[in-house]
Amino acid sequence: MENYSYLHLGEPEDPDRNVVCKYRVTTDLPMEKAAEAIAAEQSTGTWTGISTLDHSIFDDLGARITSIEGDMVTCEFPAADFSIETGSVPQILSVIAGNLFGLGALKAVRLEDVTFPKSILEQFKGPKFGADGIRKALHRPEEPLVGTIVKPKIGLSPEKTAEYVYEAGAGGLTNSKDDETLVDQRFCPIEDRTIRVSEALDRLEEEGHYMMHAINVSTRADRIVELAEKVQGWGAREIMIDVITCGFGCLQALAEDPSIKVPIHVHRTMHGAFTKDPFHGINMLPLTKLVRMVGGDALHIGTLGVGKMAADAHDDKNLAACLGDELPYKRVMPVCSGGVYPGIVGDIIARSGMDVQIQAGGGVAGHPGGIRAGGMAMSQAVEAAYKGIPAEEYAKTHAELAAALERWGSR
Amino acid sequence: MENYSYLHLGEPEDPDRNVVCKYRVTTDLPMEKAAEAIAAEQSTGTWTGISTLDHSIFDDLGARITSIEGDMVTCEFPAADFSIETGSVPQILSVIAGNLFGLGALKAVRLEDVTFPKSILEQFKGPKFGADGIRKALHRPEEPLVGTIVKPKIGLSPEKTAEYVYEAGAGGLTNSKDDETLVDQRFCPIEDRTIRVSEALDRLEEEGHYMMHAINVSTRADRIVELAEKVQGWGAREIMIDVITCGFGCLQALAEDPSIKVPIHVHRTMHGAFTKDPFHGINMLPLTKLVRMVGGDALHIGTLGVGKMAADAHDDKNLAACLGDELPYKRVMPVCSGGVYPGIVGDIIARSGMDVQIQAGGGVAGHPGGIRAGGMAMSQAVEAAYKGIPAEEYAKTHAELAAALERWGSR
Repeated sequence: MENYSYLHLGEPEDPDRNVVCKYRVTTDLPMEKAAEAIAAEQSTGTWTGISTLDHSIFDDLGARITSIEGDMVTCEFPAADFSIETGSVPQILSVIAGNLFGLGALKAVRLEDVTFPKSILEQFKGPKFGADGIRKALHRPEEPLVGTIVKPKIGLSPEKTAEYVYEAGAGGLTNSKDDETLVDQRFCPIEDRTIRVSEALDRLEEEGHYMMHAINVSTRADRIVELAEKVQGWGAREIMIDVITCGFGCLQALAEDPSIKVPIHVHRTMHGAFTKDPFHGINMLPLTKLVRMVGGDALHIGTLGVGKMAADAHDDKNLAACLGDELPYKRVMPVCSGGVYPGIVGDIIARSGMDVQIQAGGGVAGHPGGIRAGGMAMSQAVEAAYKGIPAEEYAKTHAELAAALERWGSR
Repeated sequence: MENYSYLHLGEPEDPDRNVVCKYRVTTDLPMEKAAEAIAAEQSTGTWTGISTLDHSIFDDLGARITSIEGDMVTCEFPAADFSIETGSVPQILSVIAGNLFGLGALKAVRLEDVTFPKSILEQFKGPKFGADGIRKALHRPEEPLVGTIVKPKIGLSPEKTAEYVYEAGAGGLTNSKDDETLVDQRFCPIEDRTIRVSEALDRLEEEGHYMMHAINVSTRADRIVELAEKVQGWGAREIMIDVITCGFGCLQALAEDPSIKVPIHVHRTMHGAFTKDPFHGINMLPLTKLVRMVGGDALHIGTLGVGKMAADAHDDKNLAACLGDELPYKRVMPVCSGGVYPGIVGDIIARSGMDVQIQAGGGVAGHPGGIRAGGMAMSQAVEAAYKGIPAEEYAKTHAELAAALERWGSR
């Protein structure tokens, strides 16, 4: 049986027609062999020669390795390898991020980036609201959004949750949200929580302050749209989904359903299972692109290398995938979250720019003065950064910020 | 603000009331500190002390570290931490396999195992058919099932696919399937493929041979049940889902929909992104349990440490999770697949026992005598193992098996 070569080194990339993937490869084999194993396994080959492959199939559908630079392999997949159904992320992932992770020929492999041709991008609709839609709803066109995650992540009653949200809003925060593990537990039923939080937001709005709270609707694929509709009916101004544990298809179902008329805040819990190792798994960058394609309005991107818990590298590409022109959809609001406290807000904004939502959970709920003071300290930190004033300077006239710097310090 | 301790070392496990997780932890910190960071982050804590946590919440909902043995940490989550919605895998995953993977305190962490209390298991229905239902439909009560994956994984037309399936069945195979990247491409539309393959299966049945072919319906969450219903209407006897790229909720939606009346074959492509590293991510074992809980009828489990491509360790626990009594549902048919060829079938069955489906793609399509001969060789290898005869011995009177051993050897 004939041998087919997937190596096309030096041939030009054709991103207008092909899906182009960048893989970081760790192998004991010659890199050409390892690269070919990926191209074969993910398109028309397998581990042995077969009688049913022919030149017509191979030429039309075979993946092509167009470059190998150090440990970085570029592999192009013809658009014809993908399903003609519109917007099927599962089938896309099975091609670009499927069996290759288990190949014995590779010690490790990481999907670092992907670009899609127009024919595939056109199948997706992107965010309904996006960064600008969220800003508009909040009447906040310029300054960074500043939010909290209600803490502890589980345990507060609906009343206590609503009180937390009100106090945080009274302290100046524009956003708050359920945490990723809270959906509909006995101590905090989702209906009661949504209604009471919505009342708190109404009260703030009557007092002249606009605020959103994202209610977590992460649940089974066959019930998530129904749950989101209910939550919206109970007054929610924003919903949240854990996109990795629910699946991209659930986010897409919410985003494309015309009955859902509120922005979708996207949490990425579980991503660290395959993003943490720099040599294996999947970089956040392709996932960010997919979230924007299927319609997330705001997305967690970590803290850009700043902060106590930050395992993420500072990643401009990820920020650009939310906000830049590579993808022909509305812009996604990047959300910097995870171990954030007032003392690092300036550093984050120096890296992110003003189009960002900065969130603190413990960095609000741990303020010595309580939730309102915690909200004020975070708001003051964002104001200071917006005005270009160092936090330590701003703290001289802002007691809540001073107390936060006192407790947690700066970076 | 008060410090709460999540350490309950030496206290008895309470698996009747709690979700019990085993984590393998790699850290530079003292192991107690690292374990506490997991328990805190995944239940009622965060990176700093907060004013909104109290003893009532902590006592009811805080996770408990009940043992640390070497690098293995046992963490129990009270059932009250989980959503009261029935059978929500996303919310379960966000607790047991969520943010912890990104914790800065840990260099790596791997979820090795999980057991669920009755109150959670009761929310799930398990397989509709399972291993025994598949055996019954195939009129094959005892011998291992023996199948193929149509290769190349993309490229064959509907006619060629049906011809492949017919030839494989004429060679004695009981099962075949689409590969994980094939759904509905222009070169092989799913409607035409399903109809023609079903006709091939009808023809085999008229000739006295029962066979199933799993049609891959992996698509968007909002369309997968509809696509499966169509495929069933076109004559499919089995459907397939890529459970990791689609999400557990999509498998569950198919399994629990009363209109779906065929078994579901579960492919796990992409799992290697988080199962390959022995120190980080998620062991296949918890995923196998979740697949059985949400209703997969057959599940890929690798090749039990045998074979050319096998990255998997020999894992009795995974096999037991498919077939054993820990979970109160029908048994899942374990599918050994990935680089399989006739020469290793005996070794696989020695490890798996007879309740297994053994599949070869390249190991059938690469047979020098073509697809039918490839099917015969695999069938003969399984017959030999069933009868307790070494393959080399059996090959003396079975030419197709002899040709396969000649091409690929034994283990």
